[in-house]
Amino acid sequence: VNNFDLELIAARLEALEETIIHRFIDRAQFAHNEPAYLPQHSGFAGAEQYSLFQVRLEAQERLDAEFGRYVVPEERPYTTELPAPRREVRLPDTGIALIAYDCINQTPKICSAYLSCLAALCPPGDDGQHGSSVEHDVSALQAIARRVHYGALYVAESKYRRSPDLYRELIRSGDAEQLLLLLTRPEVESAVVTRLAAKVERLQAHVNRSIRRTIAPALLVEFYRDTVIPLTKAGQVAYLLRR
Amino acid sequence: VNNFDLELIAARLEALEETIIHRFIDRAQFAHNEPAYLPQHSGFAGAEQYSLFQVRLEAQERLDAEFGRYVVPEERPYTTELPAPRREVRLPDTGIALIAYDCINQTPKICSAYLSCLAALCPPGDDGQHGSSVEHDVSALQAIARRVHYGALYVAESKYRRSPDLYRELIRSGDAEQLLLLLTRPEVESAVVTRLAAKVERLQAHVNRSIRRTIAPALLVEFYRDTVIPLTKAGQVAYLLRR
Repeated sequence: VNNFDLELIAARLEALEETIIHRFIDRAQFAHNEPAYLPQHSGFAGAEQYSLFQVRLEAQERLDAEFGRYVVPEERPYTTELPAPRREVRLPDTGIALIAYDCINQTPKICSAYLSCLAALCPPGDDGQHGSSVEHDVSALQAIARRVHYGALYVAESKYRRSPDLYRELIRSGDAEQLLLLLTRPEVESAVVTRLAAKVERLQAHVNRSIRRTIAPALLVEFYRDTVIPLTKAGQVAYLLRR
Repeated sequence: VNNFDLELIAARLEALEETIIHRFIDRAQFAHNEPAYLPQHSGFAGAEQYSLFQVRLEAQERLDAEFGRYVVPEERPYTTELPAPRREVRLPDTGIALIAYDCINQTPKICSAYLSCLAALCPPGDDGQHGSSVEHDVSALQAIARRVHYGALYVAESKYRRSPDLYRELIRSGDAEQLLLLLTRPEVESAVVTRLAAKVERLQAHVNRSIRRTIAPALLVEFYRDTVIPLTKAGQVAYLLRR
């Protein structure tokens, strides 16, 4: 398997996009539950000063870190100062030409964009299900981070390998703006969001609406257009500049 | 909302079944990875005597317990001696006439049935992705336990409320066998597995097979027929006998 075959990368990005859709739909089954996002309202013994969302996100990432999740290049955490893995993780050589993966970490922006879209994604109000809501948030955030960072690392490396001279020149001069231009393909981006909208429709076509809330394709289209796609490209530029 | 409206319960069971299908498909993307299930092979510092699967399952359930997951009647854990919640969880009154929810806990049998079906679910061999495999196992097991115990508690209470005299009689005489007979409706069970098979097909119809492995509907049908349905009924009998 060639990790940098663009067709394979595109297929993998498509699979990751499916996961994101499912996790948005799952989160939308609960109300917005704003108190779960208020600092000093966690109600969690020993961590009262944070929001319940923050406490859950950090606790899950600490656990995942101990199991070695962040050894995988595209798994970038939202939390800093995580513990080291408590097991040895042997990965096949990825071919990614960077060791300090967190140079490309876009999670702060992903997180704030995600939290901003909750009001449109979920029914308003408070259904009391704060624990489930933040559990689903973490799961959605992990899926988004995986998509963004996988795209950042693998698409950038793949494009570099196809035209090394072209990229080397811009990297040498540190020309982030030209790099971004070179990485941008509007027709691919518009094909991605069109496919995404169709998939959101299709995945909900047979849903029993008496029990499952559905989500608007436009919401995910906007999230991709304003967040996933630009942050993937920002990650690509960051990767190339450090390559 | 009446928690014991049978139509609503059926719709909720259907939604939970969708989650189970997704999680089986997600797990099937990884190889069987047998070493992850061998005791004394966790390679996890401080827990070397267990399997990686056991270590992950227990760690996740300890975290979830602290956030209050097991306060919810249908969320039954696989692990015993879990910590108390570190936050106060306020649930609306469920109407379930039992406090010691674990009287109906079927997780030991769910777990062994699930582990036995991994060989048929996943491609054989070892792809090195043990961490991801056991993470997906935990997620699948949680979905199955939720489905089984929700069905056990809510279907049993709903049926009891529709014919209290009938059930009271059998409960008084402790007649588990007759209770089981009374709870069994072969035509409903066969409709469930038929729907399940169709749903597994439909959910995978548009999948890009170059990147996503698909699973056989028969595998899930068998798992429902031999595990989910009988254990749900065993839970119903256990609930009624203690009601």
